[in-house]
Formats: sequence, C-alpha cells, structure tokens
Amino acid sequence: MAETKEIKPAGPSVMAIFGAAGDLTKRLLIPSLYNLRKQKLVPDEFAIVGFARTALSEEEFRERMEEDVKKFVGADADTSVISWLMERLYYIKAEFHDEDGYRRLKQKLEECDKTHQTKGNYSFYLATAPEFFLEATQHINKVGLFQQCDGCWRRLVVEKPFGHDWESARQLNHDLADLLREDQIFRIDHYLGKETVQNILALRFANGIFEPIWNRRYIDHVQITVAETVGVETRGGYYDTAGALRDMVPNHILQLISLTAMEPPISFAADPVRNEQVKVLQAIRPMKAEDVSSNAVRGQYGSSSDGKMPAYRSESRVSPQSITETFVAAKLLVDNWRWADVPFYLRTGKRLPKRVTEIAIHFKRAPFSVFRQTDVDRLRRNVLVLHIQPDEGISLGFEAKIPGPVMRLGEVGLKFAYSDYFGKEARTGYETLLYDVMINDPTLFQRADMVESGWGVVTPLQKAWYGVPAPELPNYEAGSWGPQAADELLTREGRHWRKIE
Amino acid sequence: MAETKEIKPAGPSVMAIFGAAGDLTKRLLIPSLYNLRKQKLVPDEFAIVGFARTALSEEEFRERMEEDVKKFVGADADTSVISWLMERLYYIKAEFHDEDGYRRLKQKLEECDKTHQTKGNYSFYLATAPEFFLEATQHINKVGLFQQCDGCWRRLVVEKPFGHDWESARQLNHDLADLLREDQIFRIDHYLGKETVQNILALRFANGIFEPIWNRRYIDHVQITVAETVGVETRGGYYDTAGALRDMVPNHILQLISLTAMEPPISFAADPVRNEQVKVLQAIRPMKAEDVSSNAVRGQYGSSSDGKMPAYRSESRVSPQSITETFVAAKLLVDNWRWADVPFYLRTGKRLPKRVTEIAIHFKRAPFSVFRQTDVDRLRRNVLVLHIQPDEGISLGFEAKIPGPVMRLGEVGLKFAYSDYFGKEARTGYETLLYDVMINDPTLFQRADMVESGWGVVTPLQKAWYGVPAPELPNYEAGSWGPQAADELLTREGRHWRKIE
Repeated sequence: MAETKEIKPAGPSVMAIFGAAGDLTKRLLIPSLYNLRKQKLVPDEFAIVGFARTALSEEEFRERMEEDVKKFVGADADTSVISWLMERLYYIKAEFHDEDGYRRLKQKLEECDKTHQTKGNYSFYLATAPEFFLEATQHINKVGLFQQCDGCWRRLVVEKPFGHDWESARQLNHDLADLLREDQIFRIDHYLGKETVQNILALRFANGIFEPIWNRRYIDHVQITVAETVGVETRGGYYDTAGALRDMVPNHILQLISLTAMEPPISFAADPVRNEQVKVLQAIRPMKAEDVSSNAVRGQYGSSSDGKMPAYRSESRVSPQSITETFVAAKLLVDNWRWADVPFYLRTGKRLPKRVTEIAIHFKRAPFSVFRQTDVDRLRRNVLVLHIQPDEGISLGFEAKIPGPVMRLGEVGLKFAYSDYFGKEARTGYETLLYDVMINDPTLFQRADMVESGWGVVTPLQKAWYGVPAPELPNYEAGSWGPQAADELLTREGRHWRKIE
Repeated sequence: MAETKEIKPAGPSVMAIFGAAGDLTKRLLIPSLYNLRKQKLVPDEFAIVGFARTALSEEEFRERMEEDVKKFVGADADTSVISWLMERLYYIKAEFHDEDGYRRLKQKLEECDKTHQTKGNYSFYLATAPEFFLEATQHINKVGLFQQCDGCWRRLVVEKPFGHDWESARQLNHDLADLLREDQIFRIDHYLGKETVQNILALRFANGIFEPIWNRRYIDHVQITVAETVGVETRGGYYDTAGALRDMVPNHILQLISLTAMEPPISFAADPVRNEQVKVLQAIRPMKAEDVSSNAVRGQYGSSSDGKMPAYRSESRVSPQSITETFVAAKLLVDNWRWADVPFYLRTGKRLPKRVTEIAIHFKRAPFSVFRQTDVDRLRRNVLVLHIQPDEGISLGFEAKIPGPVMRLGEVGLKFAYSDYFGKEARTGYETLLYDVMINDPTLFQRADMVESGWGVVTPLQKAWYGVPAPELPNYEAGSWGPQAADELLTREGRHWRKIE
C-alpha cells in the first residue's frame, strides 16, 4: 500500500435531511452514516435532523430508522453504533412551504449545538422531489440558516435531478446563487461515490502505463453502458415525465465520459479536477438538429417475447400513448487534440438483459500482424473494461498464444476484482459523499458549470425528440439489448457493442 | 479465437535419437511424441530409431520406453497411442565412434522407409553428452545420411550445450558447416518450446497496447529471474565443469532477453524472427574486463542455515575446492534506440528459495502524482510479469484506489493464468520443437550467429572468473536468494529485485 495520510474523522456538524421520511434516507443516508461512524469517521459531535411532511413523532421516526438500519446492516449490526445514531436523531414534521417548520428546524439545530457540541456547522440535504429544491432552500435562507459565522459553516446538498433541461438547470443555479455561495452548494451525482469511478482517476493518473496510450493514437473508440434490467417499477409517474435521456445522460453518463476523457488535473483537489471535467463536457461536439437522427437513437420497451414483462405503456402511472424513451444510444465526439475522431458511444436503458455499468476502452488493433496463420483484420482490439456495477473491477482483453505446436491466437483476459483485494465492504456508495460534505471536499460534486454543460450536450436531443410523434416506439422487446437502430449506430462504422455476459 | 489455418500432421519421417537410453529420451522425447500423436500431428508414416551405447535388445528398449511413457502419462494413458509408438520403435546398440553402428543405422532407416513409408526423411537427434556431438555428426555424414535427395530431407537436432565458450561454439559451427547446410541444423534451446516464451511474441506483437510503451521512454528496467530450488543433484560431474553462467545465460536467459527486447519482425517466419533476436544479442554492450566486478556477481551456495542442505562443495562429484559458480547476477545494457540506458538485470542460480522463471518489466512511475494524500515518490512502478515457470501466465501490478471515503492507493494486480483459459494440457515443452523439426520450421531454434553472439556476451565474465582465485565463495546460504552483492547490483541504482512469493 502506498503510504498515505491517516483518515481523520470529520469535524462537528448537524445534517438536516429534507424528505427524511423517504426512500433515500432509509436506504442510503442513514446506512451510510452508520458505516461512516463504524469507520470512526463521524465524531461524537454530530446529529441528524429529519424534516418531512409525514406525520411522525420524533420517537416514531427513530424507531423506523432503527428498524431500517438494522435491516440494512443485517446480522452483523453493531448495536453500539446504532444506539449512537439513535441518540442523535431528531425529527421535524412540516410541509416544505411551512415557514414555521424552518423556525422549528433552526431551534432544533441550536439545541443540537448545545446537546452535541456541533458548533453551528450545518448541512442541509435536499432528499426531496426536485420541485421542492428551490422552495426549501429559500426558506432555509429566510430563517438565516445559510449565514456562515466566524468558524461555522452551512452547506446545501442537492440531490438529482438538477433541472430538467439546460434552461431550468441554469435558472436553478441562478436562483441558488442568490441565496448562497457556489462553494456552499454540493450537487450530488451519486455515481461519483462509486469506488470504480474514483478509481478511474487512480488508474489513469497513479500508473505510468495507461496514460501514454490513452488517446486517439491508440484508442479506437469508447463504449459506455449503463443498463438496468428493471422497468419503471413504482416510478412511472416521475419517469414518464423524465425518460432515460434526462435520467441518465447529462449526469451519470457524462460524468463517466468526462472522467475517462479528461486531461490530468494539476492536483486531485476539487477545482482542478472539475476544471478538467468541464473542459471535456464543453469539448463535446454539439449535435446539429439534422444529425440527431443519425447520431442518437431512442427506444421504448414493448412487452417481452414471452409476455412476462409488460410493455412500458402498460406500466402503472405511464400514459398508454407515452413517447417517453426508456433507452438511449448516442455517438458523441470530443473535439480536442486527445480525442479528435474517437467516438464515445453510450447506451442506457431499462429492461435490458443485464444490470451493468461499464466503460469499455477499445484500443486500436496492432498495426500489422506478424503471425503467419492469422490475418491482421482477424486480430481483435484490446479492450480495457472498467466494471462499475455490479462487480467492481477491471479487465483487459488481449491476444495470447493458444497452447500447442503452432502459433495460434486466442482472446484471454487479465482480470482484477476489487472484492478480491479489499473484500466486500458494506457500502452504499454515499459514504464518501457524506464525508466529503462534512470535510468540505467538493471534488466529487457537480459544479454549476458542469451541470449546465451536461444539459447543453443533451439539448439537441431533447429538442428533436419531445413533442414530436414517434411512430417507431415501442421499438425493443423488454429483455433485449435495445432497438436495432442502436446496433446500427456502430455497425455502420464497422464496430459492435461489446457482448456483455 | 482468431481464425487460423488448420494444424496439419507433419509429413513422413524417421527420428533417430542418439543417446536414446538416456534421461532426455524417456522423460521428454518419447512423451512428447506421444502427445503429438495424440493430437494427430504425427502421421502413420513415422518411426523412431534409438541409438545408444547401452546393451539392450530392441525388445528391451521398447519395454523400457513403454514403461516410461506409461509412467509419464499416468492413469489417462491412451493405450492405442502407446501401442502405435511401440510398433515403430527400433534400437541400435553401438558406441558413438563405431562406424558399423552407423551403417546398421542406415540399414534400419531404409527398412523403416519400407515398413513405414517414411520416404527417406530423417532427423538425427543428438541427445548425447556434448563431447559426442561432432563425432556422431561426422559418422552420420560419413555413411551418407545427410545427403538430401530429391524430395527427401535430412536434419540434425543438436541439444545444448552448444560449445562451452565463444571459441568452441564457433569451432563447432564451423565443423558442422563442413558436413551439412545451416538450414539442416536445429540447435535446441528447450526454453523456446515453453508456451509463455512464444507468448511473449504474441503478447507484444498481436496486441496494440503493449508495443507503444515497450521502450526506454516508459520502461525503467527489466528483471529476468531463472531460479531453481534444487542443487546439482546427480549432475555434479558435469556441472562442476560448467557452472551457472554457461548452463543458463548464453542460451536460456539471453533468449528471454532477445524476445523481450527485439524489434517487431517483418513476419513470424524463422529468419525474420531470428534476425531481430540476433540484433539484440549483438547490441548488448560488451562488458569491459574492469567492469565485470561491478556489473556481474557470481555466487556459490554454502550449506543452508538449518544444515539440511549441503554446501555445493560437499555435493557428490564436486571438487571440495571448486570455484564453480552456482549463481549469477548481472546487469546488461542493450545499446540501441529502444533500450539505451534501460538495465536488463538477470539472476539465475541453484538452491534458491523458489523454482521460478519470469521476466518482470518494471515501468517508470507516473511522472507526477495528482493525489493529495500520496507522494509521487511513493507511487510504485507498474510491473508486468511474464510468468514462465512453474505456472504460466501474466500479471500486471498497478495502483488502485483503496475503497473508503478518502483517496488512498494500494497495489493490486490484473492476472491471467494460461491454465484458466486453456486447461493444463500434458506438455513437456518439447512437442513444438519436435513438430517444428518435422515441418522444417526453425523459428524456435538457435541459428549459428545467435549461439555465437550469446557466447560473446558472456565471454568477459568467463575470462574474469575462471582460473582466478575466488576467496568470496561460497557466498550464499542454500535456500536464500543469492549473495548480498546481487542485491547491491540493484540497490546502488535505487532498485530492488522483485519479491517473488
């Protein structure tokens, strides 16, 4: 192991969670705080204040959270950590527009400062539906809670989606900028909490061997796949107004592209990293309206061939005439010296055959083959795959000699699984993010310009697709790899989507 | 699998083995022929004629071979293949100087042509002690057996060691050249039959990603280790006149270096490959007499610390005053554009802690570290290890993020084992070589100029070491990694031998 600084616990603070009765809080936030405490990264001077519309007493809220965290941690639950959490868990029942609720919140926070010595450091975590983001923020501001005093801090954590297009994201950024400083705003994209995504930076910049071949001279193209097997489940109401493009591309997928394509930052500090990421986003060639149909594909799933999975239009709370896309594939180009002419193909969708997130770097073939029995056009491309979900790891496919008395080649793979080295720690993917909010490290959060640049990339697709008839939909069977047009996006350029097994 | 030409059985021939009663024949040659036949690579038109001094009837010879091959193949023995072999196995008892023996051999070969339709194609395999190489060859020639007729071929296979220094190798080449053409001579270095050694060429030249970083710009140094745990065993008599340098360096280790360092050949045909290999050997900087002591280390093992393993000088048939080295380490430089200033460190020895052969490419560190918590001089070098023995495979060590809320780096490895992909086929390492003799593919054999260049590299060490008192010997304990001076060879340049576990 490289020698590293010791990891210190964060300083004192209270985390106020808006929408605390919702799914995110019980599935991710509280379990993450449990894990962080277990790792001694949260100090005793800490408290959590839930804020939500659900009618619960503080005691009921605690009981629910205790039950949920035990369910999450399972048999190995460290009861002392759970008790520790419960001792510093509070609840405010209020509507998001109810100013009195925010006054009660303020009072509670001040009590926490006394009870738990949290020193006036507060983070406000918006785990609500997006329509409440601004309203809640305005009220927090109105009661003076964003006011940082000498030696105390106030931070806002905004969940996704941040806007629903370029204009709305820009407007939200603008409105938030009236209420607090950019360096107080932590825009979450939880994909950035994933180990492998951070590991992209470690892989690229802590090793001497990848960066020299990480460019157009050696890379043929990049494939990014974010595939889900599920349909819309209970989220039909939201999803039918959003779609796969908004849900996945401007945030998750563009983050993956920017981490893959960015220049080496001058340091791993927040702004140097984000400066390089935003440069990539801004270098993505804007798709012309007339090019959308040839460079992007939308899909919507019909029922599965065996009839077991319903069509999207039959899902609950989805319009039977919906033209919302549940699948997107697109070809993007990053117009800079490193990546000119190297396509970045992305695909994401619901009801695909595998749940998988991966970045596959397809290198160019060896320029010529010296082997008598193989033809150069039969040599495969080396593919370096960064596996992000479900099993984090890295694999590198390459040609090796097949044992035997003649020289024949076969594809083999070098493999590395995180779990082989580091074990399968209980992680939600949010631990890093919550810890970073507390220690004021915004590296893994989206800066205003990143969010806007991300939306900028998908604007031409949004303009081309929405409000226009889409007679081709539905165009893929639930359980298949998406519409044929997505395959053709690559095959007409002599390439193929990687077979994911 | 890359599409390849079908592997065809070799054409008709007889293999005459000199020294057929010895170890090599029963342990390697006959089992290899068994494997080749099992894979249908030897045709029915085939026969083997053993030639040796041991008093055995043809029947006794067959019985011994049958027993040995069954022992080798074990429970899975395919009796039909064994019978097939026994039906075409003959024996000539004769001294190597006995001309009559060669006449009987000739007669036997001609009988084989009739019985087995072997069409006058003969290979003569010198599996004898080296002092008989020339004598046997001269006699074979004398009875006219090297004479190739229209459509029939005659080939000579020479086991190692080929000479004991540059002069003697040159003389032997010269003498053989009087008797037959260079393209009839197949000088064996059985390391070249190993899958992974051939795979060095596949790895380097069938993949697009290694060659761009395979040079002085990205490689810091190369370490080649050929370690044995055994002592001299029953070979004391021979070994005490040879030593580790002669036994391992001019052949095996320089082959490994030349395959690692060579430029891409214009094709995988014999001469293009060997032309590039010999260029590497000729580019190795000749060690000046005064530099031998600083660039090369010899060692001889004393007894082990627990006293269980005897000192070299106490081994059977070894002189109690022997100054023969059982360990060599050296630093070589390849003076060309690709490798200038990149040290190739080699070490080989007996009674080392592990039986292992590997080539470890140590890449340069990332030029600077962007990670706050790590210092650049703490980043490790990436190391690509080509594992040759005992478990063939490849591994690549690199830095990855240690899971957790802060960026810390740890070394992990991408791994590939041949056996995971291709199974553990029964192989002796000689199959390819024997098949190549039959199909006239000398790619994996040493050409005259290669042998001489190899000896040329070690000449300064031979001159410096032999006939000179060596008061430092013995200088390492049996079961250790060799003398301290071997470590110092690297440490004084800020490097370390790879820890092999």
